[in-house]
Amino acid sequence: MVTVYGMADSGNCYKVKLALEQLRLPYRWIEVSTTKGETRTAEFLARNPNGQVPTLELADGGFLPESGAILHYLAEGTPLLPAGRLERARVLQWMFFEQYSHEPCIAVARAILRYQPPDSPRRAELPRLQERGRKALAVMEQHLGKEPFFAAGRYTIADIALYAYTHCAADGGFDLGAFPAVNAWLARVRAEPRHVPLG
Amino acid sequence: MVTVYGMADSGNCYKVKLALEQLRLPYRWIEVSTTKGETRTAEFLARNPNGQVPTLELADGGFLPESGAILHYLAEGTPLLPAGRLERARVLQWMFFEQYSHEPCIAVARAILRYQPPDSPRRAELPRLQERGRKALAVMEQHLGKEPFFAAGRYTIADIALYAYTHCAADGGFDLGAFPAVNAWLARVRAEPRHVPLG
Repeated sequence: MVTVYGMADSGNCYKVKLALEQLRLPYRWIEVSTTKGETRTAEFLARNPNGQVPTLELADGGFLPESGAILHYLAEGTPLLPAGRLERARVLQWMFFEQYSHEPCIAVARAILRYQPPDSPRRAELPRLQERGRKALAVMEQHLGKEPFFAAGRYTIADIALYAYTHCAADGGFDLGAFPAVNAWLARVRAEPRHVPLG
Repeated sequence: MVTVYGMADSGNCYKVKLALEQLRLPYRWIEVSTTKGETRTAEFLARNPNGQVPTLELADGGFLPESGAILHYLAEGTPLLPAGRLERARVLQWMFFEQYSHEPCIAVARAILRYQPPDSPRRAELPRLQERGRKALAVMEQHLGKEPFFAAGRYTIADIALYAYTHCAADGGFDLGAFPAVNAWLARVRAEPRHVPLG
């Protein structure tokens, strides 16, 4: 059985939980708070020198960090990850898009508004984060106006990766009303069997 | 034959060039300058709505963006991408690390120093970028003190992904002298058959 070191309120950790639930894989969850510094202890850094959750502990005692790598590992050989060379690349295209162009804006805006005090100087970052986050949502909207899911015409780990911080983008000050195709896709993702909410 | 839309001085585009050369795959290269706004034209956005290079045009006329997805697509079935489930996840672990924790600091510091005027207000970002970039280099140093390459004990697309902006980190104001295991790995990567330089 695998163990997830994760924070329940983190979208990156939620991705792993959602995949484990939908793949019916048993797991243990050990709550680790990034906001309380629990990813910076010597004990945690021995598991993941980059000091981030989620980190997966494998059955053999090894550790696998990076939500995208964990999703790929869990989904290999299942319907959540297609087998074809180009389809797999399309799944990864959207997972890299999420980690580079989406999460650093939408998740970070959410983190500033949820975890920083109201007078935090980090609030000055919000306009730029929100502008770049809206650009990422517009790229998603354009794709979802033509396709039901992000890759291979069906629900995959690319959808799990993008759902995690899109469905709660309002927490970061984003108005999803401007993105109807994204909203329709969010509803399709929520309708997938064994869906569980963030938290 | 595939076509690369890329900028010769971009490390993200260099990753694709290096993989194509080492895999002995024929390709066309179309130079697209991000600094001249050539990724923001309607013509280019039709190829990649996210407006980034590299973007790969496939033989069938489809387009594949995201350097990590392109590397995975090109390397599938070759020695540059191992076949085992956990080894593949380890390759992706380091490729996601590169795009999330390394490139946004080291490549962005380099871009500010190379492409922005000396009086650019963006220079104020440099201390934070350099602090976070050094943290990424320290994570690499720790790994490379124990392993010759990033995954599977051999040269893979994870090494290509991390080499691209590590070998030119001095351009971003980083002192690689403090990271001897990283330097030894850079030399191993340069010694791989059919290595080509950036540019």
